[in-house]
Amino acid sequence: MTKKLISHFRKYVEIDPNDEPVILSYFEPLLFAKKENLTHNNSQCKFHYFVENGCLRMFYICDKGIEQTIQFAIEDWWITDYLAFEKQARTEFIIQAVEKTDVLAISYNNQEKLLKKYPQLEHYFRLIYQRAYAATQHRSKYLHTLSSEQLYHLFNNKFPEFTRRVPQHILASYLNMTPEYLSEIKAKKRSTS
Amino acid sequence: MTKKLISHFRKYVEIDPNDEPVILSYFEPLLFAKKENLTHNNSQCKFHYFVENGCLRMFYICDKGIEQTIQFAIEDWWITDYLAFEKQARTEFIIQAVEKTDVLAISYNNQEKLLKKYPQLEHYFRLIYQRAYAATQHRSKYLHTLSSEQLYHLFNNKFPEFTRRVPQHILASYLNMTPEYLSEIKAKKRSTS
Repeated sequence: MTKKLISHFRKYVEIDPNDEPVILSYFEPLLFAKKENLTHNNSQCKFHYFVENGCLRMFYICDKGIEQTIQFAIEDWWITDYLAFEKQARTEFIIQAVEKTDVLAISYNNQEKLLKKYPQLEHYFRLIYQRAYAATQHRSKYLHTLSSEQLYHLFNNKFPEFTRRVPQHILASYLNMTPEYLSEIKAKKRSTS
Repeated sequence: MTKKLISHFRKYVEIDPNDEPVILSYFEPLLFAKKENLTHNNSQCKFHYFVENGCLRMFYICDKGIEQTIQFAIEDWWITDYLAFEKQARTEFIIQAVEKTDVLAISYNNQEKLLKKYPQLEHYFRLIYQRAYAATQHRSKYLHTLSSEQLYHLFNNKFPEFTRRVPQHILASYLNMTPEYLSEIKAKKRSTS
């Protein structure tokens, strides 16, 4: 079975079938159990992760000990702390499996080597980052202008997978609301739909 | 005089001196007066801008008519609404000159052609976007965890150029505080330093 990663590359660039095993040899397949941490707070950020199956979240711990989720990744998404990854420095974030998750992990050095050997992947990552960055520009606007309820509906329309798969308290943390308030919004939706 | 853009490319990739005029021919040099708009709300997002000299900001207008600044760009920075640029769609943001500003503007089609002709620029943009995206991950954390005062000091330490050049009400909008509160913080800093 072709790995999802190769299929994803092929949405943007050409990959010669003979190169598939070579490309995959730069990655380490890893399996994480639900709630297992891929990276730990203040540990070196070694890998860039591609989700083959499952769901990850990235969060930090506030002064009060509360976990604040800032990002999710499901199938075909990439995730890491990019600043720490590029500098191979310690990360301030924790990446954790929301459900049992298969990833392909690539180290910084391997990623650099891979992109040198297959320059078409520079194009791939340029587009991936361009879109990820674009999304943050718009997220920044939504967070300011939409009510919590509008934010939930926007998120739910755009990413129905997440609202189905992610536990309510984690989704609430990402949307900057209490789990109780999120629960109220969902109940209201059910009663009006 | 070598354009700042070419020098910036050379920080990341090699550019043959013979290619300089060819590369620059893909760009349109434009000069904007202070407070002049480069893009207008709800107009097509045609260009990606590189700042040669000056300072730009990107903002949107809230329901109450307030201008909310989400991004700045000074010398050597790129700016556009990336989602609208990639789709060549209408933008929800306004890009405006904070001071008299020289830019090099590239259209979407020209950028695609340029990157095809000079694939090393895929590497350049991959790194530019990777860093821009990395910064947003950390900004998201700072906005949640730091007090307004800490946020100002962090910003001032990281980007002293901005606090010097950007009018106070615009900086306050970016940092999510009132101009009066920003003024208080700055006064407090002066009296303790």
